[in-house]
Amino acid sequence: MSTLKIGLIGVGRMGRMYGQYLARRAQGAALVAVADQKAELAKSFAAEFEIPRWHSNYQDLLNDGGIDAVLVVTSTSTHKQVVMDAARSGKAIFCEKPIALTLEDGREMIASTEAAGVFFQMAFQRRFDVGYVAAKQKLEAGAIGEPVMFTSISRDPYPPPLEFCDPKVSGGLIADMGVHDFDVARMYMGEIRRVHAIGGVLAYPEMKSVGDIDNAIVDLVFQSGAMGVVQLSRNAAFGYDIRGEIWGTKGSIQIGYYRQTPIVTLTPEGVTHDAVPYFMERFENAYLAQIRNFVEHLQKDLPPSITGADAMAALRITLAANLSLREHRPVEVEASEAGRHRA
Amino acid sequence: MSTLKIGLIGVGRMGRMYGQYLARRAQGAALVAVADQKAELAKSFAAEFEIPRWHSNYQDLLNDGGIDAVLVVTSTSTHKQVVMDAARSGKAIFCEKPIALTLEDGREMIASTEAAGVFFQMAFQRRFDVGYVAAKQKLEAGAIGEPVMFTSISRDPYPPPLEFCDPKVSGGLIADMGVHDFDVARMYMGEIRRVHAIGGVLAYPEMKSVGDIDNAIVDLVFQSGAMGVVQLSRNAAFGYDIRGEIWGTKGSIQIGYYRQTPIVTLTPEGVTHDAVPYFMERFENAYLAQIRNFVEHLQKDLPPSITGADAMAALRITLAANLSLREHRPVEVEASEAGRHRA
Amino acid sequence: MSTLKIGLIGVGRMGRMYGQYLARRAQGAALVAVADQKAELAKSFAAEFEIPRWHSNYQDLLNDGGIDAVLVVTSTSTHKQVVMDAARSGKAIFCEKPIALTLEDGREMIASTEAAGVFFQMAFQRRFDVGYVAAKQKLEAGAIGEPVMFTSISRDPYPPPLEFCDPKVSGGLIADMGVHDFDVARMYMGEIRRVHAIGGVLAYPEMKSVGDIDNAIVDLVFQSGAMGVVQLSRNAAFGYDIRGEIWGTKGSIQIGYYRQTPIVTLTPEGVTHDAVPYFMERFENAYLAQIRNFVEHLQKDLPPSITGADAMAALRITLAANLSLREHRPVEVEASEAGRHRA
Amino acid sequence: MSTLKIGLIGVGRMGRMYGQYLARRAQGAALVAVADQKAELAKSFAAEFEIPRWHSNYQDLLNDGGIDAVLVVTSTSTHKQVVMDAARSGKAIFCEKPIALTLEDGREMIASTEAAGVFFQMAFQRRFDVGYVAAKQKLEAGAIGEPVMFTSISRDPYPPPLEFCDPKVSGGLIADMGVHDFDVARMYMGEIRRVHAIGGVLAYPEMKSVGDIDNAIVDLVFQSGAMGVVQLSRNAAFGYDIRGEIWGTKGSIQIGYYRQTPIVTLTPEGVTHDAVPYFMERFENAYLAQIRNFVEHLQKDLPPSITGADAMAALRITLAANLSLREHRPVEVEASEAGRHRA
Repeated sequence: MSTLKIGLIGVGRMGRMYGQYLARRAQGAALVAVADQKAELAKSFAAEFEIPRWHSNYQDLLNDGGIDAVLVVTSTSTHKQVVMDAARSGKAIFCEKPIALTLEDGREMIASTEAAGVFFQMAFQRRFDVGYVAAKQKLEAGAIGEPVMFTSISRDPYPPPLEFCDPKVSGGLIADMGVHDFDVARMYMGEIRRVHAIGGVLAYPEMKSVGDIDNAIVDLVFQSGAMGVVQLSRNAAFGYDIRGEIWGTKGSIQIGYYRQTPIVTLTPEGVTHDAVPYFMERFENAYLAQIRNFVEHLQKDLPPSITGADAMAALRITLAANLSLREHRPVEVEASEAGRHRA
Repeated sequence: MSTLKIGLIGVGRMGRMYGQYLARRAQGAALVAVADQKAELAKSFAAEFEIPRWHSNYQDLLNDGGIDAVLVVTSTSTHKQVVMDAARSGKAIFCEKPIALTLEDGREMIASTEAAGVFFQMAFQRRFDVGYVAAKQKLEAGAIGEPVMFTSISRDPYPPPLEFCDPKVSGGLIADMGVHDFDVARMYMGEIRRVHAIGGVLAYPEMKSVGDIDNAIVDLVFQSGAMGVVQLSRNAAFGYDIRGEIWGTKGSIQIGYYRQTPIVTLTPEGVTHDAVPYFMERFENAYLAQIRNFVEHLQKDLPPSITGADAMAALRITLAANLSLREHRPVEVEASEAGRHRA
Repeated sequence: MSTLKIGLIGVGRMGRMYGQYLARRAQGAALVAVADQKAELAKSFAAEFEIPRWHSNYQDLLNDGGIDAVLVVTSTSTHKQVVMDAARSGKAIFCEKPIALTLEDGREMIASTEAAGVFFQMAFQRRFDVGYVAAKQKLEAGAIGEPVMFTSISRDPYPPPLEFCDPKVSGGLIADMGVHDFDVARMYMGEIRRVHAIGGVLAYPEMKSVGDIDNAIVDLVFQSGAMGVVQLSRNAAFGYDIRGEIWGTKGSIQIGYYRQTPIVTLTPEGVTHDAVPYFMERFENAYLAQIRNFVEHLQKDLPPSITGADAMAALRITLAANLSLREHRPVEVEASEAGRHRA
Repeated sequence: MSTLKIGLIGVGRMGRMYGQYLARRAQGAALVAVADQKAELAKSFAAEFEIPRWHSNYQDLLNDGGIDAVLVVTSTSTHKQVVMDAARSGKAIFCEKPIALTLEDGREMIASTEAAGVFFQMAFQRRFDVGYVAAKQKLEAGAIGEPVMFTSISRDPYPPPLEFCDPKVSGGLIADMGVHDFDVARMYMGEIRRVHAIGGVLAYPEMKSVGDIDNAIVDLVFQSGAMGVVQLSRNAAFGYDIRGEIWGTKGSIQIGYYRQTPIVTLTPEGVTHDAVPYFMERFENAYLAQIRNFVEHLQKDLPPSITGADAMAALRITLAANLSLREHRPVEVEASEAGRHRA
């Protein structure tokens, strides 16, 4: 099996992370080019990781016939243009979540990849985390009976830069963070019928200037009748707090941990250990497994592990939650394309 | 200080528990009489704990001039009548939660105790649990900055007998269980402005026959702008699961534990410990501290630690949550009497 | 069954604790007299707990025909005299550990109780702790196969007053603390054949002035061939640290816990909870269960749960360990009386 | 800085692990050749990891002028010959622990590397584990005052193949496993003066046929006066159990963890999580960090992080413990070469 030649578009925080895994730890793949509109970033990243080619214009990368696949890790508001251009260039595509800020954009993106017949995989790294995977296996093995309630907690230690919080760029707190929780909810519990969201600016008053919130609660009613709740926060302060919980008729499963380093200090001030600093520490192995999965599925001609339809489902829930937040009422989640066609 | 002579009205599950603490572990108090409409229960309990007098009619106990105070531990739907009769008899009163099934009943009860000038204390044992108390102290000491989100989880290992689940008797799941969570919410976060509830029969289909639910989620919006969520379940299956969590601008506090016996077994099947069986194991010390507090406050002429107003506030939240559940919409919590008068 | 009338001899720290349990929480027993050579202590304790009679001379208590049983909670060096006098008076006896400082003293004590035909029970509260009891049950149920290694850790948060540390009074660190670990070792693993001890003054230089040590390690070789280690320390500093561990051919059991209050605080300084302050917090329920067991066995005419022979076995191990410590060599544990007679 | 070209000698279990890290995750290094006397192993490993050259005779690898450094991961009894040959060939050397089975062999090895002037680094991966490193930092920062007692526990889930347990090959249980604990002991507590060991065949009777034991306890007396204990076992059964503990005058540090996957299952059978399967799961990051450290120190002309003198110190303790085990007495640890010269 020949080595997969990959180009990376976007070397911001997430782009650098994926790039490092590809450069050093993803067997069977070679990172041969990077692109970023900030030329200096592209150039220095290429130098550090001995990547042959770099560009300040991603179109140049897409025109590179020596590239088989691209990773799209630009800001969400630019996903549509980059993915559609990449599809037209015939490259296989890995796209960072969320797919887009609107359902229309998402639909156009998926249509373009289908029209071009290119491989298109979305990113939801929790699906590759050993904890979330083990929970899925336990659940399917019947360890806790029928699942009836789901909880998902995502808490960042601090907010992103203010310009990123602008809902026009990121989609806002619920889109940026909650989309992971909604994806996990679907994985364990099936589709979501209705949501109700509350939220506010409780920790960082400056959030108001860009129109975002910093804490939210989203209730979920699943099509099965089961229920769930998602809690989001930008002010964990002590570290990164990611938890999942499934309550079944015969037992429960809890996912997550609170101690990064295997050391505990016991002094008269108390028994103390560290917390998980942030997402790189918590999900390093999941991100790595995800990018390896992309490479493997492409090379073995397997279907994408996470599809555009998955991304659209999570986006529909996100948009319904945002509407609920604005209008202070429960909101039905729009049925999927397939679902609407069937109806 | 002379010994406080106490009569116990109701020797069901909760009544027996309070009775035992009074009989054996509450210094300064003597349990001198019990009453239960099931004469056999009253008689056998009196025999077991060497209690001088027993009655099948609580009026006989109220007429006993040798009794200073009564514990009202009958079913919620009878609280009103018993408390008002006790007030008229001039006894000090300790009343099991919730105060009543309707605000009107509660108001009449409080009015009758005020008219009679008797000491009236409500039961919310979590306020005496070392965990909840320590969390309150940490919060007030500023350990986590301003509190912005609150979570409270109450899960029973199995449902009560079906006849008790009848909302006409118990008020339903949210009244029976959630009232504890609402009380704790107020203790940490202040008054609640609005609630939204979802719930359903997800684990025990027979619940439908009496009109109750077995799982619920209640969102809370506090007057401060902070938010919260209460999760209730009758199907923890593995044991009793009581948790609280407060997220502040500078840190978090978690309350609760998952291991009753200090032993862990490590075998090829995994690392295993027991869970907390049920409320007696979890809250034994809190119930004991609560009853001692009642005795102490009476003897030292201190005001009741938990007032009728506290009970009414929790009831208002409960009723709003039940209305939200029925009407599928967020519901404003009725302002307190004081609040309404001020408005 | 009539109430057991009990006299308490010694109202120091441990005596007060037993006395409180008897006065308030031991059904079927009544504490009717206390004695302490410090008259003020006896008098004030009697007043506080409404105990009818107090004495500064324990002989007066022994001469009290209205007393059925006595608790001997004086300093170890006085156990012999008090127990023998109590036996002569015909009272049932509960004796705080360790039984004595020398085997000869212990043998005389046991002989005197046997000659007088009185009930004689020793104190080792860990045998009544839910953790140690559960571990015993798991072990006997075969949960971990054959036990092959045993670990016991006892760590105090700070040393006792210096005068108590004097080996002539307490027997020294290994006698005072290790005797609990040796008793537990026997309970799980059977008799001990050989010990090796090392120890020193590592934390409190003032210990040298009385000839005691503050840290020790004692290796155990059991008659079964299994092995063990006991670690003792007076400088846990953060709290009270009591652990047991049994390694079997098919698994392990761990006993102990590190968090007293069910609350965890998460701040940028770390994830922190409290520790177990000291023995009263750790073993309150065990001490209570032990004293109830004494009352129950006496009333039901059952044999003592912990015998003089148990106490002598633990003392033999203690003395062998002290000899090993002094002579820097492994020391065989003297066979029991029964064992020696058989030889 | 040019890429370091490395040859791997020995592709057994440990050799394969190091080889994989070098092949895929050690930036700045290239694995260009492997050797194993089992030609098939060398060939297949080379094929799997796309390594240019393979040999069945390690001398051929040493004669390869295109190689800068070698990893010696053969069985302990062959370390001496391979290291001395490698030194003569002028290659930098990374040698798996323990250095040798006798002090004489170790001295000759070190002398040969010094004579040849080659870089020589020993392997003790715990020194690169985040837990052990963090504990060292806490200790040096004074977090627990003066360290007075040290505990180290190493437990394997099952024994190695019987032929490997032969003390003539591996040095026996204490050499094979305990050498890690002795190294860590030195790192935290300084040099060791005296040891006492007990051990036996308690779980696997077949061990007797090769003359090894499966469980041991080794007491340590440090030159500082502090004490320690090492517990070794081949029958953890539930998994891999590696713990360290340091007790200081002002607090304690505990190192280790018991849960590999971040998931807990709660059912009526109990609260259960997995354990750590074995050393690869526990120490993957430490092994990786260690091999990167070797590459980095070589490339930057830094001294070896772990020296031959460190390996010799651990070997002296091992040999003293084995002697103590045989002769049932405490044994002084031979002073180091430097120490003896000073005397």
